Amino acid sequence: MNIKLVLKLVGRVLLIEAAALAVPLTAALIYRESPVPFLLTIAIMGVCGLALSALPARQQFFAREGFVAVGLIWIFTGLAGALPFLFSGYFATPMDAIFESCSGFTTTGSTILTDIEALPKGILFWRAFTHWLGGMGVLVLATAIVPKLGIRSHYLTQAETPGPVFSKLVPKQSQTSKILYTMYFALTAMEVLCLKIAGMPLYDALIHSFSTAGTGGFSNRNASVGAYDSVPVDIIITVFMLLFSINFAVYFLLLTRKWKEALASDELRFFLTVVFGATAVLTLANLGVYSSIWESLRYTVFQVASIISTTGFGTADFVLWPQFSQLIIILIMFCGASAGSTGGGMKCSRILLLLRAVRREIHRITHPRSVEVVKLDGKLVSEATLHSLLVFLGAYVITVFSAALIISLDGFSFAVSFSAALTCVSNVGPGLEAIGPSGNFAAFSGLSKGVMSLCMIIGRLEIYPILVLFSPSTWRRT
Amino acid sequence: MNIKLVLKLVGRVLLIEAAALAVPLTAALIYRESPVPFLLTIAIMGVCGLALSALPARQQFFAREGFVAVGLIWIFTGLAGALPFLFSGYFATPMDAIFESCSGFTTTGSTILTDIEALPKGILFWRAFTHWLGGMGVLVLATAIVPKLGIRSHYLTQAETPGPVFSKLVPKQSQTSKILYTMYFALTAMEVLCLKIAGMPLYDALIHSFSTAGTGGFSNRNASVGAYDSVPVDIIITVFMLLFSINFAVYFLLLTRKWKEALASDELRFFLTVVFGATAVLTLANLGVYSSIWESLRYTVFQVASIISTTGFGTADFVLWPQFSQLIIILIMFCGASAGSTGGGMKCSRILLLLRAVRREIHRITHPRSVEVVKLDGKLVSEATLHSLLVFLGAYVITVFSAALIISLDGFSFAVSFSAALTCVSNVGPGLEAIGPSGNFAAFSGLSKGVMSLCMIIGRLEIYPILVLFSPSTWRRT
Repeated sequence: MNIKLVLKLVGRVLLIEAAALAVPLTAALIYRESPVPFLLTIAIMGVCGLALSALPARQQFFAREGFVAVGLIWIFTGLAGALPFLFSGYFATPMDAIFESCSGFTTTGSTILTDIEALPKGILFWRAFTHWLGGMGVLVLATAIVPKLGIRSHYLTQAETPGPVFSKLVPKQSQTSKILYTMYFALTAMEVLCLKIAGMPLYDALIHSFSTAGTGGFSNRNASVGAYDSVPVDIIITVFMLLFSINFAVYFLLLTRKWKEALASDELRFFLTVVFGATAVLTLANLGVYSSIWESLRYTVFQVASIISTTGFGTADFVLWPQFSQLIIILIMFCGASAGSTGGGMKCSRILLLLRAVRREIHRITHPRSVEVVKLDGKLVSEATLHSLLVFLGAYVITVFSAALIISLDGFSFAVSFSAALTCVSNVGPGLEAIGPSGNFAAFSGLSKGVMSLCMIIGRLEIYPILVLFSPSTWRRT
Repeated sequence: MNIKLVLKLVGRVLLIEAAALAVPLTAALIYRESPVPFLLTIAIMGVCGLALSALPARQQFFAREGFVAVGLIWIFTGLAGALPFLFSGYFATPMDAIFESCSGFTTTGSTILTDIEALPKGILFWRAFTHWLGGMGVLVLATAIVPKLGIRSHYLTQAETPGPVFSKLVPKQSQTSKILYTMYFALTAMEVLCLKIAGMPLYDALIHSFSTAGTGGFSNRNASVGAYDSVPVDIIITVFMLLFSINFAVYFLLLTRKWKEALASDELRFFLTVVFGATAVLTLANLGVYSSIWESLRYTVFQVASIISTTGFGTADFVLWPQFSQLIIILIMFCGASAGSTGGGMKCSRILLLLRAVRREIHRITHPRSVEVVKLDGKLVSEATLHSLLVFLGAYVITVFSAALIISLDGFSFAVSFSAALTCVSNVGPGLEAIGPSGNFAAFSGLSKGVMSLCMIIGRLEIYPILVLFSPSTWRRT
């Protein structure tokens, strides 16, 4: 394990994070708030970052180092990002600040705050900005800005990229990152513009666009997007939540005018089917809660888009919906967004491949001599890929239940413990009952908040980098 | 699809079921109760059974036919077994009677009865006897008694056997069934004897032994085994619940004095580790509920054995335990007993192999050039077997959540809907909250009861035979 090089990378990312703090610092200065929390953090991050990046290290870099680096970078980013929260004095314990920061960088959006609007605007700006930074991955950001680290950065992105089928858009890795980053920036800017036109103040438009882009869910309003009670705002955010949960490779194909290829994506079709299907079923199931089918549709489609994109914004409290609707919410929390997007969850492509593997298994039983392959986008999925995917799904379910077990020590109901674990691992935000869209995560113990923070990172990094970090075989000399 | 031969087999099994009804009929006569429900059922089963088994059919029999036969036999056995319940007049609707019968034959042990002790002794005897019949599989019974059906009965047992690694004990299939059957009979007789010595009336001893043998859980007392409040009874039933959830192949090895081979079983070790581990943790976690560590141990070990063996007897209401303890109960419901036993659930060997596959995946990431295989009992597990197993686990989780979704239409809490689906698919019996050990399944709608009945059969047959039944490709001409 070339730990020095790994720490060097951690140092570089801390420096980038310090630079990024200039944005909320500016916001604080504009609103004449105290710049101290940010200046103090920048100083600490700067010193640590410089010290670490000055480490002398061999340039040897393998898969193992890549996974460990990704794991450590997210953990340190989460910890360092908590400092402004801590210094602001609005967070009761350091664990609370860490929870909020991890929730931000992993684009989860769960909060321990009970009165969001009481916080300074600079702090809330940082909170939403962590979503935006986390969104495409601090690492993709890092590889776009610092493309010539002189290491085989391919490994980093391999661990980073959500999903199994993220196609390389262009041969060179640094080029890919730049293109992704540009598209991400352009989509965010478009949303800010749309929200501004719809009448939202610029500050609010920026915060909600950052949160949507990262599929995070932090708002500067206690009632989340529901506070605006505006149909245009609902529609704009719904559309952008869905846009940010589609594989960015699809956009690249559209930009290069490969329409056919873009729309032929199995995952895109599956994703849209789930969105439309869930919206249709839930609109009918929720009729009893709303006064008309249009009202039901308005609130249902927003909540469905919010959950499947793993954003977690709210315009209605789904905890008040029928139990049947809440179970569908739980199911689409498992499912999540598309691979290669900023969304979380198991990812649509994996669910689709699992369903195809089950179908093949049934066919094999009844036709033992037939040879059938599993395909995605018309291409054969190798048995090795399928194996990894199935093991991943197993590891995912094990992670959710293990976390729920520790969280249950707090004595909350099964629905709360289970949905807390699931919403964190899937990077969604709200859960059921007390931690629903109108609730918050303040009541949990420090242990639970710690476990949930780790779960958010585990989920965001698709489990393995963190498991690798805790595996003894990683640290053994070879 | 050679449907005639399949129906012929269904007919034979109905005849066996009719013959088996002589046992509860005798009980009814001894206790001077009306024999009408049994006589009527025997007449109906006899006529249908004779008509079906007289069907002229080609002897062609492939895997497809085997799976369809297994599926249909369990469905028809469940429906036919409901007739005595229905004719007794103690069940409010035909669906209630079907639920109870399916719960019996699949050895689940969930009940819709609110006052068990109000029922005639003959009916309660039939209820427990369905567990015993279902236990080793009506089919193993059938292949032992009717060994010369003249068909390739291997396929039947392939679908029937719970678990992936049930070793053939002896080369000939019919011989295997006889040995299994004898061991099953002997163990049941031993339990009856022990319970009798411990002071239980013979009638009660028989009922509880039948239920333990099938790892079912029906009792003739409202308070289940707790009604006897006897330490010896608790110990005896705990031991036998565990004995019936160990792979019967282990007993065969012990009988043939292959001690080393028997005790080297990975699954046995894993099973015992889970039992001891869960008991130790829960005894401590439940200390607040009980007055001493011994009392906590007494009630904890019984409940752990009851749930992991998927029996479902109760001496304490785990719904009153801390939430942490209840989540462990849910986890061991997923886990279940050993392959090749009468228990349900995913089976210990599958969980063990999943954990080993995850461990290998982590090792592969950090050591990309290493070649590592997954082993069980020192033997290599083929990638094809591992693939089937992983797909099975995926199908299992999908089944549980799909069933929970339909059950949630009744409006019960997430904990109730989810645990109802899980307890039925895993063939355990009780669930959380209102359907806990002191509760019952009476309050569900007919639709939910139907779905749960089907889930019990799906779980008992390890999913595929029922999926095959509903797959269009099964019924397509080839």
